[in-house]
Amino acid sequence: MRIMLQMKEAKAGRTTPEMEYVAKKEQVSVDIIRKGIANGRIVIFKSTTSNANPLGIGEGLSVKINSNIGASQKVYDIQQEIKKAEISVQYGADTVMDLTSGPTEQGIRDVRKAVLGHIEVPLGTVPMYQIALRSIEKSGGIINMTEDDMFSVVEEQAKEGVDFFTIHAGVTKNLAEYIKKNPRYMGIVSRGGTITAVWTLENDQENPFYANYDYLLEMAQNYDFSLSLGDGFRPGCIFDSTDYPQVQELLTLSRLVKRAQEKNIQVICEGPGHVPAHQIAENMRLQKSLTNGAPFYVLGPLVTDIAPGYDHIVGAIGGVIAGMNGVDYLCYVTPSEHLGLPNLDEVKEGVIAFKIAAHAIDLTRNWEVASQWDRKMDRARKDLDWNEQIKIAIDPEKARRIRERDGPIERNEPCTMCGSLCAIKILEDSIKKDDEKELSE
Amino acid sequence: MRIMLQMKEAKAGRTTPEMEYVAKKEQVSVDIIRKGIANGRIVIFKSTTSNANPLGIGEGLSVKINSNIGASQKVYDIQQEIKKAEISVQYGADTVMDLTSGPTEQGIRDVRKAVLGHIEVPLGTVPMYQIALRSIEKSGGIINMTEDDMFSVVEEQAKEGVDFFTIHAGVTKNLAEYIKKNPRYMGIVSRGGTITAVWTLENDQENPFYANYDYLLEMAQNYDFSLSLGDGFRPGCIFDSTDYPQVQELLTLSRLVKRAQEKNIQVICEGPGHVPAHQIAENMRLQKSLTNGAPFYVLGPLVTDIAPGYDHIVGAIGGVIAGMNGVDYLCYVTPSEHLGLPNLDEVKEGVIAFKIAAHAIDLTRNWEVASQWDRKMDRARKDLDWNEQIKIAIDPEKARRIRERDGPIERNEPCTMCGSLCAIKILEDSIKKDDEKELSE
Repeated sequence: MRIMLQMKEAKAGRTTPEMEYVAKKEQVSVDIIRKGIANGRIVIFKSTTSNANPLGIGEGLSVKINSNIGASQKVYDIQQEIKKAEISVQYGADTVMDLTSGPTEQGIRDVRKAVLGHIEVPLGTVPMYQIALRSIEKSGGIINMTEDDMFSVVEEQAKEGVDFFTIHAGVTKNLAEYIKKNPRYMGIVSRGGTITAVWTLENDQENPFYANYDYLLEMAQNYDFSLSLGDGFRPGCIFDSTDYPQVQELLTLSRLVKRAQEKNIQVICEGPGHVPAHQIAENMRLQKSLTNGAPFYVLGPLVTDIAPGYDHIVGAIGGVIAGMNGVDYLCYVTPSEHLGLPNLDEVKEGVIAFKIAAHAIDLTRNWEVASQWDRKMDRARKDLDWNEQIKIAIDPEKARRIRERDGPIERNEPCTMCGSLCAIKILEDSIKKDDEKELSE
Repeated sequence: MRIMLQMKEAKAGRTTPEMEYVAKKEQVSVDIIRKGIANGRIVIFKSTTSNANPLGIGEGLSVKINSNIGASQKVYDIQQEIKKAEISVQYGADTVMDLTSGPTEQGIRDVRKAVLGHIEVPLGTVPMYQIALRSIEKSGGIINMTEDDMFSVVEEQAKEGVDFFTIHAGVTKNLAEYIKKNPRYMGIVSRGGTITAVWTLENDQENPFYANYDYLLEMAQNYDFSLSLGDGFRPGCIFDSTDYPQVQELLTLSRLVKRAQEKNIQVICEGPGHVPAHQIAENMRLQKSLTNGAPFYVLGPLVTDIAPGYDHIVGAIGGVIAGMNGVDYLCYVTPSEHLGLPNLDEVKEGVIAFKIAAHAIDLTRNWEVASQWDRKMDRARKDLDWNEQIKIAIDPEKARRIRERDGPIERNEPCTMCGSLCAIKILEDSIKKDDEKELSE
């Protein structure tokens, strides 16, 4: 297998087929893509072992969304997870992350392999879950996991074709100690972050992904997988937002971004989390400034904590505000966030809410290209062409269900909302009458 | 009946029981309320005939949301509309507008009377629907409606206890002619706006609500109802946003706001509509500047046109961005917008999406007061106290349904998402173990 590092090629001024592919898809010149990769502001997700279509993320490109799928210790059904991955892609997910966290190490492998065989978008994982399960099975507890477990799980997954990894390399022992001594409102809510923090504290050792980051970068060079630097200390509630541990970790991540780029490893940064709306802009700008514009990937953000059951809406709101301040990539949140593992319907709802958010952001950045979708819808609306409206809608099935609920669709007839008081119809009829009057005169 | 104009009292420096009530509810001093009313930046919805609890809207107060209910020509069921009003209030609607538009004038009256008897929040209407139905029944067409019909319907409704009226007084004949000659992408989408515009064109007469605006103000003085100046030419798609007719109408409305305030009539301004995210700030600031800070009431705004079935999400996104730029009052949008009359579930979904939006805005403005709700939730989350989380949630029923889907709730046990990898649990157990170690040493 020929290893070709996109970033190395870009820095050397060479164009790869992956750059060509992304340029065409994004409707921008390949120069923009190549320069963006060279200076770290664009990444292409596509490891050398992957069968996915290359995906560009970053400055000047359309906003991307990720769907998290994966079974858990308590709910495990491989077929269901494959369906979640498929429905995610159907409704617009640009990437899928398999976050399966149990019930066994083999169970985690099995879902990943099944999902890899069913989607053509890049796949990401959080290797720490498999590492944790291996450690529990081998030695009875998470705190016994070894450095060798950590790196060998990453390599195992890289070989299989995973395109990007969330690595909590910014979870340092120092900062874990700080949080222990200075409790936050919600502590640590990132699973990978907590596992790592507790491991460093109980073993009195530095986080191997931080201490031996260069080894991780070497491994990345062998597969050209991308790094998504996880924010292990992201705020878990709006009261912890933009606090010391969050910003201190971001500072650490910014150094790790630079080190990755120096080794030609493509890297993105993960961000919060729970952030009230008025703090989103500063968070986005701070990250962009510290990382010299590296692609930024946020979870939501969630602008309030009061709405379990509706966190897809809460997150889509935060996502658009983040996007208006530079974010490149949104991780979806489903209605079941904070309550349980999402089912198929909730995965679909999460993807659609975030696809709406991403599209709303694209309209603010690249009006001519992005608004083509809206233009088609508006033409069909003006024509009262219901079948066309439904066809174009983000969720044709739901649009049809609502539209047909109170009777069959008739073209050029108003819906049940307005009837004969339909504004479009009244104006249209008045203009038509006028035209006829003029013709007969 | 003693007529007391809130604005007249406020200008004279006198405090009314309604001001006291609002001040207490908003946790602000009554001085703030009185001064806000005196300078037109706050209104209290509460006509002299109304049984509603007074409601303050405007600068320095919490953001309010409105739920539109009402039967249509095609779907008419009074009991259903009462239920929609009740469920709206249950989930946080601060006002209800009854937009019943048929099937007969009497049908419109019947819903209004039924709803008035079932809610304690202020009720608003768009009198033009009843006016149009009366005209159709009396003389076979909307264009035959008379000036007398218009004002007498407003008075009839004012007598019954309606608190505020959407009046499309800014729909001038000039501007209607302009739109006819210079077609917009989506024409006119406000029903009241289209009816009025077509009437002015076909009758070659000025809009009576504009021409005889002083008469409307006199009537308002008799009941102290509030005016909500409708934006008849609001953009009906993102391509018409912030265009000539929209801004020209806003200029007209700003003059009408001033004239109302001079006569001690409390007045708010209605705003768009379909507005891409990057145009929301300028729209909000323009309105506030032109009207000297009069309360602003927006419909959404909707930041994209691609998502029929999900316009509650699209509108909640726009609503928060509008709120971050000064909006005071959000009119909800339901999932069935652009497709049909909403059913009960969709009304509930719309109210919740906009309650989330309003709360997210309140957090940006009045952190100490607004965040108390989030604080309770976060405490329960940290404690893994599921029953408390569900109780506090914006929709306890939905939160419980998701949480209990895969098994019964056990206090202090992780949910099906994370199982033993629960971040909160891992950190808590680690700290507990440490504490025990310290105790035993």
